[in-house]
Amino acid sequence: MRPYELIKAKRDGGKLDPDAIREFIAAYTRGDVPDYQMSAMCMAVFFKGLDPVELGAWTRAMLESGEVLDLSETPGLKVDKHSTGGVGDKVSLSLAPLAAACGVPVPMISGRGLGHTGGTLDKLESIPGFKVNLSVADYRRLVKQVGCCLIGQTATLAPADKKLYALRDVTATVDCLPLIASSIMSKKLAEGIDALVLDVKVGSGAFMKKLEDARALARTMIGIGTEMKRKVTALLTDMDQPLGRAVGNALEVVEAVEMLRGKAPDDYTEVTLALTAEMLVLGGKAPTVKEAREQLQRAVEDGSALRKLQEIVQAQGGDPRAIEDYSLLPQARAKADVVAPSDGFVTGIDTEAVGLAAVALGAGRERVDSVIDPAVGFTLLRKVGEPVKKGEPIVRVHYNDEKPLKDVKERLLKAYRFGATAPAPRPLVVERLE
Amino acid sequence: MRPYELIKAKRDGGKLDPDAIREFIAAYTRGDVPDYQMSAMCMAVFFKGLDPVELGAWTRAMLESGEVLDLSETPGLKVDKHSTGGVGDKVSLSLAPLAAACGVPVPMISGRGLGHTGGTLDKLESIPGFKVNLSVADYRRLVKQVGCCLIGQTATLAPADKKLYALRDVTATVDCLPLIASSIMSKKLAEGIDALVLDVKVGSGAFMKKLEDARALARTMIGIGTEMKRKVTALLTDMDQPLGRAVGNALEVVEAVEMLRGKAPDDYTEVTLALTAEMLVLGGKAPTVKEAREQLQRAVEDGSALRKLQEIVQAQGGDPRAIEDYSLLPQARAKADVVAPSDGFVTGIDTEAVGLAAVALGAGRERVDSVIDPAVGFTLLRKVGEPVKKGEPIVRVHYNDEKPLKDVKERLLKAYRFGATAPAPRPLVVERLE
Repeated sequence: MRPYELIKAKRDGGKLDPDAIREFIAAYTRGDVPDYQMSAMCMAVFFKGLDPVELGAWTRAMLESGEVLDLSETPGLKVDKHSTGGVGDKVSLSLAPLAAACGVPVPMISGRGLGHTGGTLDKLESIPGFKVNLSVADYRRLVKQVGCCLIGQTATLAPADKKLYALRDVTATVDCLPLIASSIMSKKLAEGIDALVLDVKVGSGAFMKKLEDARALARTMIGIGTEMKRKVTALLTDMDQPLGRAVGNALEVVEAVEMLRGKAPDDYTEVTLALTAEMLVLGGKAPTVKEAREQLQRAVEDGSALRKLQEIVQAQGGDPRAIEDYSLLPQARAKADVVAPSDGFVTGIDTEAVGLAAVALGAGRERVDSVIDPAVGFTLLRKVGEPVKKGEPIVRVHYNDEKPLKDVKERLLKAYRFGATAPAPRPLVVERLE
Repeated sequence: MRPYELIKAKRDGGKLDPDAIREFIAAYTRGDVPDYQMSAMCMAVFFKGLDPVELGAWTRAMLESGEVLDLSETPGLKVDKHSTGGVGDKVSLSLAPLAAACGVPVPMISGRGLGHTGGTLDKLESIPGFKVNLSVADYRRLVKQVGCCLIGQTATLAPADKKLYALRDVTATVDCLPLIASSIMSKKLAEGIDALVLDVKVGSGAFMKKLEDARALARTMIGIGTEMKRKVTALLTDMDQPLGRAVGNALEVVEAVEMLRGKAPDDYTEVTLALTAEMLVLGGKAPTVKEAREQLQRAVEDGSALRKLQEIVQAQGGDPRAIEDYSLLPQARAKADVVAPSDGFVTGIDTEAVGLAAVALGAGRERVDSVIDPAVGFTLLRKVGEPVKKGEPIVRVHYNDEKPLKDVKERLLKAYRFGATAPAPRPLVVERLE
């Protein structure tokens, strides 16, 4: 089938043949299908969708456009976690060493922060010396030796996705469920994993603000996993306020390390344990989530998870002492507090606004080429449901540059909503799908 | 508004600002908006349409992408006719001299045949010496001196349409009502006309097979005319069988000349007179269609329409004697007949199939660069509603090459449907819109 016929078939709501999809994506990657045909196809997919079989073929074609890493030299089922992104989402930093400490090999390829959401690579790089641009050979070796390796996207993995994403970005076809799902899944499956846990964030700080949208994305990605014979479990988790109390790269590293010491905020601890438990189950290290949780508890209590993190840091060129002595991490020069305007309770936090305040402060990226400051960020002294007294600090701003401070404080104050009574608590894990 | 935002707005069903549309089309014509953004936009328009104001802005932007001919040196209202294309549609060949003979200046830029439909330029070029590639200066001069000039599309008129059409052709966005309508109207308005009569064909030989589609296209084009302050009248005319009895370039010229002598088949004569009468009314030469018809009748009877055709042929380098002596037109070497398989009546003709049989014979074009034979074609000895006897000729094939003959005859026989009774006659002019 020629590209023209394929576009027309999709435009008219037809089902595309998997072989035709494979050839279309392959030809696009080679440059034989021009951008203008692919953008017309993406817009047709925006309106007409892709059914599970089409989506499986589309994702497989993107996956096969590049190298698919072979981690078979590492015994056992390799399991990764993917988050759709949020504010204060430092789950990977504690989840990866936890899972590895419990015997699940974790090959993890992560991204950088963009817009209001942070990125795992930026957080890791706030640890002095930590390298995320390892070669594929080193990646493979560390997954085997250490049980975990955390790196950035390479040019050889799913190049079709890289090319397609750039095109979607300028043709208003980014926010299209099947294209989002196939983009994520093709990159993740190229890592060489056997199973995947999805953390689909939902709420004011997530890309999916509504539960039904988050659920649809989760189902779509699980469907792709099924088509590709990979086990996928998804948790829909709350992102209606930042996760934990730290927002900002070095600050989040500290909170993640504290979690491995059993001393982190409850919400962050709970979400991390819930997701990591699913990894242990998928990786065959625990028969049930309950037993997985017990193993994770022990890995925290006996210090093995913390030691695994130190091992990972050392293996990737970072200074493992920074895990013990936080003063070795980047420190902001000054602090300033945002204070409560009245007595009452925090009733809500516009989480995307907090993320954008972090960008304004320099902790996050406005554009792909923005330079970030790893030291700056926020400590949320009060979160939703907590009581406040007028004049009491609610957010501590860690800053280096005084220029954006006033704007940042205003944004934060505006992001907080107050009321006379505490709202009913929201569940942290909203739904589980598999 | 950036192109990205404009695409997204249309994708989400929003209304685009006329100025933003103008800048988008202008930037596309300059090459500043890449093809991949325009193809995404066209696909979004396919799904979400353009409202009358948007469509007016879109058409005007395409019109203004190039030269808009100024025919003000020719006094009076200049009126053209556009047909959406059919089989045996030689209306322009008789309509243009008729209207000009009655004092309406006719600046007419036509196309070539493609696929199952014929094209006015190909028919004209079967007249020895006739030139359709005149300069704009000659075109302007002949409209003034002769009252009519028939030429092909030039590179300077509506270049945005040329570029956009080529893109739509490979991105499955051709069959999109607002894009079809704006393409036609931008080219027609660039001719320098004051008013336009549309012949929207409907039936098995037309692009619009269904009445509601033809009506929608007519309404859309009339809407553009209203937006652009041009008077537009549309007739929906029957294309459920070929118009007249001649199909093929030189054969159709003969039938057109015969019409100006009052001796052509009734259906072709009637459709031509109906359309030309509308031109006389729009051109201010007759207060009503009825009075226009009387003028046209006189122009046939007193020979002035025929003399006008000879004048046009001479002015455009053709041999005017060919209008008197048909042996000077290209002649096919041989004839063969398709015969009726049984007694009865012709109950229908698959008109697109007849057009494709003409392509197979060499009378039409499969691709833009196909070479055609002006001499070959068909004489339809029997049309819908007419009685046939078994073994009696129903179509005469005029051919030069024997190779496709068997296939052509089979196609023609298959295109005819027969029955025991004659079907009720269909109206030739199905509907009139203005």
